Amino acid sequence: MPPGRAHALPSGMTQRLRSLLFVPGNRPDLAAKAPRSGPDGVVLDLEDAVPSGDKADARNAVADVVGPLSAEVPVYVRVNPPGTPWHEGDMAGLPAGIAGVVVPKLESLSQLIEVSGSVSAAGIVAGLETVRGVMDAREFLGPPVTACYFGAEDYVYDLGGVRTDDNAEVASPRALVAVAARLGGVTALDMVTLDFGNTERFDREAHEARALGYRGKLCIHPAQVALANAAFLPTDQEVEKARKLLTAFAEAGGTTIAFEGQMVDEVVAARARAVLAAVDGN
Amino acid sequence: MPPGRAHALPSGMTQRLRSLLFVPGNRPDLAAKAPRSGPDGVVLDLEDAVPSGDKADARNAVADVVGPLSAEVPVYVRVNPPGTPWHEGDMAGLPAGIAGVVVPKLESLSQLIEVSGSVSAAGIVAGLETVRGVMDAREFLGPPVTACYFGAEDYVYDLGGVRTDDNAEVASPRALVAVAARLGGVTALDMVTLDFGNTERFDREAHEARALGYRGKLCIHPAQVALANAAFLPTDQEVEKARKLLTAFAEAGGTTIAFEGQMVDEVVAARARAVLAAVDGN
Amino acid sequence: MPPGRAHALPSGMTQRLRSLLFVPGNRPDLAAKAPRSGPDGVVLDLEDAVPSGDKADARNAVADVVGPLSAEVPVYVRVNPPGTPWHEGDMAGLPAGIAGVVVPKLESLSQLIEVSGSVSAAGIVAGLETVRGVMDAREFLGPPVTACYFGAEDYVYDLGGVRTDDNAEVASPRALVAVAARLGGVTALDMVTLDFGNTERFDREAHEARALGYRGKLCIHPAQVALANAAFLPTDQEVEKARKLLTAFAEAGGTTIAFEGQMVDEVVAARARAVLAAVDGN
Repeated sequence: MPPGRAHALPSGMTQRLRSLLFVPGNRPDLAAKAPRSGPDGVVLDLEDAVPSGDKADARNAVADVVGPLSAEVPVYVRVNPPGTPWHEGDMAGLPAGIAGVVVPKLESLSQLIEVSGSVSAAGIVAGLETVRGVMDAREFLGPPVTACYFGAEDYVYDLGGVRTDDNAEVASPRALVAVAARLGGVTALDMVTLDFGNTERFDREAHEARALGYRGKLCIHPAQVALANAAFLPTDQEVEKARKLLTAFAEAGGTTIAFEGQMVDEVVAARARAVLAAVDGN
Repeated sequence: MPPGRAHALPSGMTQRLRSLLFVPGNRPDLAAKAPRSGPDGVVLDLEDAVPSGDKADARNAVADVVGPLSAEVPVYVRVNPPGTPWHEGDMAGLPAGIAGVVVPKLESLSQLIEVSGSVSAAGIVAGLETVRGVMDAREFLGPPVTACYFGAEDYVYDLGGVRTDDNAEVASPRALVAVAARLGGVTALDMVTLDFGNTERFDREAHEARALGYRGKLCIHPAQVALANAAFLPTDQEVEKARKLLTAFAEAGGTTIAFEGQMVDEVVAARARAVLAAVDGN
Repeated sequence: MPPGRAHALPSGMTQRLRSLLFVPGNRPDLAAKAPRSGPDGVVLDLEDAVPSGDKADARNAVADVVGPLSAEVPVYVRVNPPGTPWHEGDMAGLPAGIAGVVVPKLESLSQLIEVSGSVSAAGIVAGLETVRGVMDAREFLGPPVTACYFGAEDYVYDLGGVRTDDNAEVASPRALVAVAARLGGVTALDMVTLDFGNTERFDREAHEARALGYRGKLCIHPAQVALANAAFLPTDQEVEKARKLLTAFAEAGGTTIAFEGQMVDEVVAARARAVLAAVDGN
């Protein structure tokens, strides 16, 4: 990419959300402990983690816990989706001081407009987890949405498919969500890994996700947080290679060179610069 | 998924079409034997299986065979595609009593409107097997289309590509067809497996297809029917796991639990319920 | 596919561009030697291969070299992308006698209209290498664009992802470019392979690309040209099988037959005919 071309990352992408740890809204005990694992954000969940009968209690528990918790870590609240009996109450009861509201199963611009009428300062994290929401994401990702996640479990349920270990059934929608996020200037977060003891799978998925343009991953267990925090930064090897490559490219005066068996031109150099920028606290 | 959210499967999806067995329209002898393998539907083919010179004879043979055959199994007729010299005659000569007409190489809403003017009661099974038809499927899947299939052989021919054993060249369009079918409320049927002696491949493809949201598979040999019928139902292992999981989830009062190393919340439970529903004759 | 259906390949597809060899515009010495490896086309690059300070000199060098070079091989010039300080000068200075102009990072119809106002006779080769350009390619591929390429390196940079050896992060966009090219009647060219010593990778990618509908591959080293020229023609084995299959199909009078364990009908025969046509100098 020639230097004359503006290619700044959209502002939404500067938000660091390598790990977003979900905690059931009805478990204030877990919420209090959530910062210990070092997540970039914590989500207090009023949706799937809370049974119908406990929705009101959970809302109160969330309101109580946000104050102290948000002094330690950015706190988000996931409300129940538009169209459910709890959605409006959840939105009306959003406590002050949260970093954003997570709206699951968002699937259209009109829904977003309705939802965003109820939100004041905080940004929206859009849950893309229905077939329609994923396919139409490009139409509604953008302010006030600052981030989005791909919800593979709900997506496959909505599709009528089967979740498998190799994730082949979500390859296309997973790629599409990252693309729509990029076009909307929004941070993309990868699906959960339900088998929380399987660190190999989490790690593999996180690296795939980073390659696809994702900036972080939803976590449903504190043990997943450190894995995500590491996986969504360049590796030491990548940083080392980027430094050497840029030195060699500069010494050649910016002309195409062969470096460690690879042809290097401006775009490869630009990617190396992005690696270094990501490490320097992007 | 919270219970407050309407998530009934579209009505088209309740049609059971795990196996749709194709028989050349000019082979009444094979048609008569078709029910023996137990397919959910039989297609009498006037298109690719019949040479140009035999089209009229095949039409007559089909008309003769539909009556007795449809007493045993739902019978479909595949006509020649819109734009060919045989299409209108095929449509005009559709025998009474068929479960539906299969229209190959459908690619636009205007084509569908034209075709559906000629069909009375029977539903349409849309063949998506051109690049345009696959890419634009979302625009025209819906009533009177009740089902569709992905035609990989024709698709790759139209694309100017090469069919390979690993199906990598059809990964994207195959996923897209299932998605368009879901959005249109239509049953999706997976591509044929031409090497009919390769049961491993058929089985692998059927399981991939089910994961992607397909409900059945085209069969071009009676030996493929039993494989399809088995593959598009949940396995005993899935049913067993779904039962146990739902019991544990209910005992916990619907709150998030860890079950066999996996985090289980409402959406995972909903998927387990769908597994049981599929077995109970959905 | 029945014979009554018109299925001629769009005219753009008859252009033979199995290998398109890139040479830095500021290296007339390399340009002079470029025809030796036998590429179907040579691109003199004013963009990524040329540092900002050398842009004007490179433009002059390109103008000098085109005359003699185009006597030996079709010559293309890659200009700097629309919106850069060099684009208009590059376009104004395009030498006579070139086979086409390569416009990188093309992403909209309005850009194309602007660019094509400056081009007279020569066709345009569109570089699809931004997220927007790839996703919207279908909207602007078509005359005066005669060919396009998928630029994986720039695409992944724009996406904010990571380039990997297994290319999983480009699977979806790579398939999409070939599809958009087909719908626009344009020749599709596959991404570069940067590690130019890795012939196994180049070969694997070329065969994947051909399966996806690509007609050729960008080359960044003369040693890659022979690999591309071979990979984008049917193999001897394919030709042999196509001949045998067509003989058997003809002997059966065009009716469905089993051939070497595969069911063969009209569409399979049509694909075999396309294999033979590709060898006969298409």
